[in-house]
Amino acid sequence: MVLGDVFVLWFVPAAAVVGILFALVQWYIVSGVSVGGEGKGNNGYLHVDEDGVSDAEVVAKCAEIQAAISDGAESFLATEYQYLLIFMGIFSVIIFVFLSSVGGFKWERVPCEYDTAQECPSTIAYAFFTTVAFILGALTSTLSGYLGMKIATYANARTTLEARRGVGRAFIVAFRSGSVMGFLLAANGLLVLFLTILVFKLFFKDDWVGLYEAITGYGLGGSSVALFGRVGGGIYTKAADVGADLVGKIEQNIPEDDPRNPAVIADNVGDNVGDIAGMGADLFGSFAESTCAALVVSSISSFGTDRNFVAMSFPLIISAAGIFVCLLTTLVATDLFVIKGVKQIEPTLKYQLVISTVLMTIAIFLVSWYALPDTFTINVVGHDPKVVKNWHIFLCVGSGLWAGLIIGFVTEYFTSNTYQPVQDVADACRTGAATNIIFGLALGYKSVIIPVFAIAAAIYLSFSLAAMYGIAVAALGMLSTLATGLAIDAYGPISDNAGGIAEMAGMNHEVRETTDALDAAGNTTAAIGKGFAIGSAALVSLALFGAYVSRAGIAVVDVIQPKEFVGLLVGAMLPYWFSAMTMKSVGKAALAMVEEVRRQFRTISGLMEGTAKPDYKRCVQISTDASIREMIPPGALVMLTPIIVGTLFGVETLAGLLAGALVSGVQIAISASNTGGAWDNAKKYIEAGRSEHAKTLGPKGSDAHKAAVIGDTVGDPLKDTSGPSLNILIKLMAVESLVFAPFFAANGGWLFRL
Amino acid sequence: MVLGDVFVLWFVPAAAVVGILFALVQWYIVSGVSVGGEGKGNNGYLHVDEDGVSDAEVVAKCAEIQAAISDGAESFLATEYQYLLIFMGIFSVIIFVFLSSVGGFKWERVPCEYDTAQECPSTIAYAFFTTVAFILGALTSTLSGYLGMKIATYANARTTLEARRGVGRAFIVAFRSGSVMGFLLAANGLLVLFLTILVFKLFFKDDWVGLYEAITGYGLGGSSVALFGRVGGGIYTKAADVGADLVGKIEQNIPEDDPRNPAVIADNVGDNVGDIAGMGADLFGSFAESTCAALVVSSISSFGTDRNFVAMSFPLIISAAGIFVCLLTTLVATDLFVIKGVKQIEPTLKYQLVISTVLMTIAIFLVSWYALPDTFTINVVGHDPKVVKNWHIFLCVGSGLWAGLIIGFVTEYFTSNTYQPVQDVADACRTGAATNIIFGLALGYKSVIIPVFAIAAAIYLSFSLAAMYGIAVAALGMLSTLATGLAIDAYGPISDNAGGIAEMAGMNHEVRETTDALDAAGNTTAAIGKGFAIGSAALVSLALFGAYVSRAGIAVVDVIQPKEFVGLLVGAMLPYWFSAMTMKSVGKAALAMVEEVRRQFRTISGLMEGTAKPDYKRCVQISTDASIREMIPPGALVMLTPIIVGTLFGVETLAGLLAGALVSGVQIAISASNTGGAWDNAKKYIEAGRSEHAKTLGPKGSDAHKAAVIGDTVGDPLKDTSGPSLNILIKLMAVESLVFAPFFAANGGWLFRL
Repeated sequence: MVLGDVFVLWFVPAAAVVGILFALVQWYIVSGVSVGGEGKGNNGYLHVDEDGVSDAEVVAKCAEIQAAISDGAESFLATEYQYLLIFMGIFSVIIFVFLSSVGGFKWERVPCEYDTAQECPSTIAYAFFTTVAFILGALTSTLSGYLGMKIATYANARTTLEARRGVGRAFIVAFRSGSVMGFLLAANGLLVLFLTILVFKLFFKDDWVGLYEAITGYGLGGSSVALFGRVGGGIYTKAADVGADLVGKIEQNIPEDDPRNPAVIADNVGDNVGDIAGMGADLFGSFAESTCAALVVSSISSFGTDRNFVAMSFPLIISAAGIFVCLLTTLVATDLFVIKGVKQIEPTLKYQLVISTVLMTIAIFLVSWYALPDTFTINVVGHDPKVVKNWHIFLCVGSGLWAGLIIGFVTEYFTSNTYQPVQDVADACRTGAATNIIFGLALGYKSVIIPVFAIAAAIYLSFSLAAMYGIAVAALGMLSTLATGLAIDAYGPISDNAGGIAEMAGMNHEVRETTDALDAAGNTTAAIGKGFAIGSAALVSLALFGAYVSRAGIAVVDVIQPKEFVGLLVGAMLPYWFSAMTMKSVGKAALAMVEEVRRQFRTISGLMEGTAKPDYKRCVQISTDASIREMIPPGALVMLTPIIVGTLFGVETLAGLLAGALVSGVQIAISASNTGGAWDNAKKYIEAGRSEHAKTLGPKGSDAHKAAVIGDTVGDPLKDTSGPSLNILIKLMAVESLVFAPFFAANGGWLFRL
Repeated sequence: MVLGDVFVLWFVPAAAVVGILFALVQWYIVSGVSVGGEGKGNNGYLHVDEDGVSDAEVVAKCAEIQAAISDGAESFLATEYQYLLIFMGIFSVIIFVFLSSVGGFKWERVPCEYDTAQECPSTIAYAFFTTVAFILGALTSTLSGYLGMKIATYANARTTLEARRGVGRAFIVAFRSGSVMGFLLAANGLLVLFLTILVFKLFFKDDWVGLYEAITGYGLGGSSVALFGRVGGGIYTKAADVGADLVGKIEQNIPEDDPRNPAVIADNVGDNVGDIAGMGADLFGSFAESTCAALVVSSISSFGTDRNFVAMSFPLIISAAGIFVCLLTTLVATDLFVIKGVKQIEPTLKYQLVISTVLMTIAIFLVSWYALPDTFTINVVGHDPKVVKNWHIFLCVGSGLWAGLIIGFVTEYFTSNTYQPVQDVADACRTGAATNIIFGLALGYKSVIIPVFAIAAAIYLSFSLAAMYGIAVAALGMLSTLATGLAIDAYGPISDNAGGIAEMAGMNHEVRETTDALDAAGNTTAAIGKGFAIGSAALVSLALFGAYVSRAGIAVVDVIQPKEFVGLLVGAMLPYWFSAMTMKSVGKAALAMVEEVRRQFRTISGLMEGTAKPDYKRCVQISTDASIREMIPPGALVMLTPIIVGTLFGVETLAGLLAGALVSGVQIAISASNTGGAWDNAKKYIEAGRSEHAKTLGPKGSDAHKAAVIGDTVGDPLKDTSGPSLNILIKLMAVESLVFAPFFAANGGWLFRL
């Protein structure tokens, strides 16, 4: 290791600032596409196209639709954030009271754990800073979701307009906008965390254990906002989507995103609040948690005891380096290559993953070499300290990074309609919806196998080399290319919206075909994004679990003990309970939406003929109300379980529960995401009819296509509500247990004490 | 404790013999219903009914159909058993060679583990007896499945014929036949096991540890046959059922079980080979394994070291007492009450559960009091021995028994169309198949919650009171009313077949309505039976897991160690892998069936008009071939995983893997069974149209009904193939690990040694 503290103090914020600036530049470029009502501008041409719609009309229409989507999203998020504020207020009090109670609500400074001769801040001060970190994490997460939504709604109509000028130009707008979101989130999350550490350090001084334990509140804040974002947004988007499809596509036989469908605006709003804002908050949460896990584990390692600030900051340096790597990777897509045909979209996105992974491997090597001491020790409660070399850490981070790439590729294989699995599912539509569903479920189950082996291999390697610190940095490795991952992930919903706008604005079929192609690739990248999210969630949760175990002073989590085993069994059940709630919520909300859409078709005369306008606002309202109401029970389940179990049954049962939820949740999350993605793309495969095989199944409206639509509809809540929310379930329960660990260790297990 | 060895030597075989005699008496009574071609006999009446079909014709038709079903089932089982023989041969060699290798293939007697001053049989002798026990278990399991099938095919037409004389008489025939199967299996399993122990004892003499370890082979044999029975039978029955429904009900719009459908015989054969033979083998396996687990754990307890034969035989005495309890319970249904209306069917079956549970509780109390010493000790590897009192054991057995009842009731609540959940699912059909599927999946997930809590409570109590012995006897407690459980479980497929025969024989709609009502109750009891099967499988697996851990000499299964955690994660994935295989197999086989049925409808002229006969045999052949071919990969996955993991990765990873598969498999198995059961009954709810609500959804052929049929079809492989097979996955991997534990402990973990 050769770097000094000064390097960290400059490099990390510099990377964050560069990331933010880069995002702004991309945004500026995207804003070059004008969506004014002016009808001309630099879009370059003004003509009447084949469908008799003049360019000016189209542009004005796009602007109008964009405004409606943006308003809907903004009003939903505003409502959601009101509830979040209340939640944050209550939960801040809980954190503060519970943690203060450990030290008996005393203001006096206490002897330090690491050196009883010295004095450390009181538990009240510690509880206070944890609470502050919680609030900061929650606010940053909220901001991340909000910014993502703003960018996406800004970009969607622009993508549509550019689609008139070719697939390459449309792609680049969508992709640039995705990267705006990716870089803003990654850089912003890093910057806030780094500044928080610096500020907290002024107070905690040499008490690094206390400092980094208080910082875990940041992860908790980030993840609990993400929970409501994912669940609320997920219910919103799928209630609208399912409701719109059930009446529009199946009953009235009008195309997806047809402007006559009253739920169509709500559906498009949903993409932005669910897939964009929810996902942004989720991945920000993963980043925050894995960093916190790594920091808290290393604070009790030799980095902490030696006060080696550079080595302590290793997780932050990795993330900072990741921003530069992603910046280079993005330039490859935006400036080195030009996309000319539809077939190049998927490979370009895939190369982004490969390029960023390869570059990042080099970066990790350099950072491990220069920022870490040659040899150091990681302390493990109840075991001998582990002696670790810096190249071990390179292997840990690298294993996470490459496991992520493998997960990405497997996800692509199982969800892209270029490959056999989705084509088999499409083929099963020949015999109807039932076989489509059976094959889709089987595909989802099967798609779990390789990702689990990849995660298991990364875990085994990292765990053996550097105990829980290894796992935490492996998670960081998977998330180190976050900006790129987010960019290609956000690309999906933006393209989806662009297609919707094209349809609603009545653009010609060429434009629709372009946006459809963008969207099909987007389905796959969305699935890949979910694969990353769940893979990193697994690693992060395990790291947090390890940190929890060490903080709760548990030496062994022995599952052949009653307390632990019962925890394990019930923990493995929780993802099912949670999924039951979220699936049912989507179903109920969708039924309400269906009733409303039917009512409008029935009562608004001239709606089907296109002479009257539907009441979009009413549908937006239904989705908003349903999602706010329905996000509370699953949210409560996740937030309360660790507190109840820890308090009543104690730290051992909670440890078992976390392990059970982790190993069971990973499987359901992966299979749900991939099943849903596969059904969606099987439907698109039949619709596009690009191969001989696809042509025998289609066209739109054929029996096979109808069966495919049913599969797609079932897949919606699986892939966009319950599946991705499970990441947060496992992460959040782990980080919450970690934050409350001192309380549970001191006061937990009431029931067994009786 | 007051009982002597003589009591055991008389009581256990006496119970078995009484059970067998009781079964024979029931069979004799059922045989009173004549299915001759003679047209008259004691059926009592000969007339031409409203549809213009004479009674003689109907009876002759029934006899003919019964013969076709019986032949089909027999020929499938004959084929299946050929493959099983090959498998048993190969696996016997593996067991013998692997276990002999532990002692270096030496014939010399070795110092005993419990007393090194004495000599015990050589490892080769031990390996030999384990292999013999394996073969005996496999043969008994095969016999159980075969007998069940014979009884069911004997009873189905008789139930149909009695249905003409009222619901009460039909019910009693179906129920008596179910109890023939229940008592034969329970008594036969107990008798063979007891005799095996007595014979082995002649050789092992005072080496009780060796004796009861060798006996574990019996459990392995029983369960491995059950695996192929469940998987093969499950694929058979669902390929036929799905294939028949897809073309018959959906495309050709003919009723279920219409004789014009070429797959209809195969469908009815499937009920007998899957739901009857497969389930019989499965529950026999659970009984054998839980008994073996209890025996092997207690052989190293103070029972074993004190050579207390009565206490050692406690598991067998419990099962023997269970036979008497079930006998009394059966008499209540057959002789004390007479069923008069359709509404009494479900309550009568439910009372069976309640009565047997209450009576059994008393029996357990008596047996625990008289057969066990007041205080004794259970040895736990790596921990202090556990001091246990006899009333502790009463609580353990009782907790398992009552947890079973709770699971039964919850299953009933979630799968019977008398209650809200299924009615909600039916209501969701209003908006189409997609919402039906979404609600059904959510229902299945939700139905997991209470059963898991019930199992967890039983585990916590038994585990805390008597370590792994407590778990093993809790499993026995749940299975102690096996004869009754099997009886009401077998009742389902028998009624299903009876309905099929009524339809095929062209009986009038009154008879159909009677058999439909029997069948709807049968769906619920089948789901309850599956609930018991999975609940007991969870307890059995945990007991076997405990026995494995102790035999492999593992003191702690610490999931915050890399080897164990990776095992846990991969183990939790295995049920998904397995389900992917079985679901896909059903899908593929169903597609083949669909092609064949379509071909026959297309090429056989006059088929739709009923003037030509379909080629039933071809469809039977397709199901047979598909199931034999497709059962091998999932079977190999289950059988090979423990051997590969134990050999390459060692005993700790295998321990983690077993725990992961257990806690994850339980959830999927319960949710899959209940989802499928709910869909089936939601469909029946709409068809029966007994309430105002149901009438708004129906009648047959309405859009809502079509949506319900799709759900039912998707549920078929979930509830009858992958769900119930998962029980065996978790049990079998555990018992296999237990049998091979000495080998893994001596030679395992090659990969980590490199």
